[in-house]
Amino acid sequence: MLFERVAVIGVGLIGGSFALALKQAQACSHVVGAGRNRANLQLALERGIVDSIAADAAAAARGADLVLVAAPVAQFAGIFSLIEKNAKKEAAITDAGSTKRDVIAAARKALGGKLGQFVPAHPIAGGEKSGAAEATADLFRGKRVILTPLPENQAGAIGSVRRAWEACGARLGTMSAEEHDAVLGTVSHFPHLLAYALAQDVASRENASRLFEIAGAGFRDFTRLASSHPEMWRDICIANRDRLLEEISRFSGKLEQVKKLLDDPVNLEKFFAEARDARDKWLNSSS
Amino acid sequence: MLFERVAVIGVGLIGGSFALALKQAQACSHVVGAGRNRANLQLALERGIVDSIAADAAAAARGADLVLVAAPVAQFAGIFSLIEKNAKKEAAITDAGSTKRDVIAAARKALGGKLGQFVPAHPIAGGEKSGAAEATADLFRGKRVILTPLPENQAGAIGSVRRAWEACGARLGTMSAEEHDAVLGTVSHFPHLLAYALAQDVASRENASRLFEIAGAGFRDFTRLASSHPEMWRDICIANRDRLLEEISRFSGKLEQVKKLLDDPVNLEKFFAEARDARDKWLNSSS
Repeated sequence: MLFERVAVIGVGLIGGSFALALKQAQACSHVVGAGRNRANLQLALERGIVDSIAADAAAAARGADLVLVAAPVAQFAGIFSLIEKNAKKEAAITDAGSTKRDVIAAARKALGGKLGQFVPAHPIAGGEKSGAAEATADLFRGKRVILTPLPENQAGAIGSVRRAWEACGARLGTMSAEEHDAVLGTVSHFPHLLAYALAQDVASRENASRLFEIAGAGFRDFTRLASSHPEMWRDICIANRDRLLEEISRFSGKLEQVKKLLDDPVNLEKFFAEARDARDKWLNSSS
Repeated sequence: MLFERVAVIGVGLIGGSFALALKQAQACSHVVGAGRNRANLQLALERGIVDSIAADAAAAARGADLVLVAAPVAQFAGIFSLIEKNAKKEAAITDAGSTKRDVIAAARKALGGKLGQFVPAHPIAGGEKSGAAEATADLFRGKRVILTPLPENQAGAIGSVRRAWEACGARLGTMSAEEHDAVLGTVSHFPHLLAYALAQDVASRENASRLFEIAGAGFRDFTRLASSHPEMWRDICIANRDRLLEEISRFSGKLEQVKKLLDDPVNLEKFFAEARDARDKWLNSSS
């Protein structure tokens, strides 16, 4: 048994799947959940995701050997304060936030002497669905989890956090928080912004019902990310604002290039072929 | 038996699936195929998609009761000339082009006295795969096919073309070519441009391999359209250039709005929620 007692703060798709995966791997004996939404916690209890519900993050952290914070990133500062006051000195702490610079800044402010126990992590898994109802034990199987360890991290904490994510079936990698936020800004956060922007734009037009009537599978897949949790993505986009402003500027330039290519069939086809070849190569190498 | 002999010019995903669907519905006794790629035609013959291969569109059109043109739209002018010289006076002619204004302009120039036999159509089906290898009999089942009939159309031709697409299992709708190109420009052509632009942009960066290494399911779905056939999409984008320039301008404005929202958490979340609610409502109503 890796952990006696695991606390999950935020028992949604990610937190709930983490709990289920640890249980399936027989890596823990008791999961206590905390969160803002009582109905969601009740469902998590009924589904056997958590074994008990704590009144708040403070109560959940008390006595836990491992604490996972899986809430929208804007809430981390408050949660870390409660953890700092209540977690055991030997507890390992990790998170599932999609941005890391802001999460680490919040940890530095609020975790005090327990900073060394906190090993930041980001599982590249999930999707547009949310809530304990969607949690599954195999969400992280074969998926990448990026750790962005701190210089202050205790070796024991790093080991515990690694073992926890590995027990979920994840493939671990390590990056600096800066590189993480830049890379994820490009391949995840910015595509979310684009999908939201296109879906909102279409929905706001006078002929929106006609447009949706004709939209097919291409539009559905292209805008899938726009069905993601608005509050979670608000927090991510605000936390990674500087990188997203850069992505928007860069992409606006790309759209200007495309405008010109609409007058230049030969190079337009070349541009499309470059995109296709790179994507197909990526899919073939990752499958 | 609806048709004795059906000619398919361009036996790719769409043309091949049309042939298979008509055969499965026992709506025709012989399909003759023509196209530029000999190996693809040979595969179509082996897979039983076509019963014979014609040397060119002229030979295919000769003696056919129904002709489907399913080539990239820039080739339509040349193909229509051959059809005009060779098709029977009572043959029905249709197409599967993703743009309609340019296809109709080409028909008006090249089809001469046979213009009344040509009923333009666009099946909203397909995907990023291409070629006879990908054709399936049920590609059009339950999918929308938009007809953009001409004032010159003979009632008999409209009836034949409707019955052909209905035999494929499609749901028929009618629109003006202008509305078609505007609507499809918004919900299909522009999303393709965005996907191509993002995939090409990521592929062209110095840290491209790192970016692809970390990219997950969101990026995969978001860029799926970028794996589409470059020549086909070059032709579509050039044919619908005026509408796409409008979409690019509009979307650039939307990105400026998003930039400002990155400073305004409350309205950013509202913006995301609008997008999500509209998309989810669409998916619920269309499923």
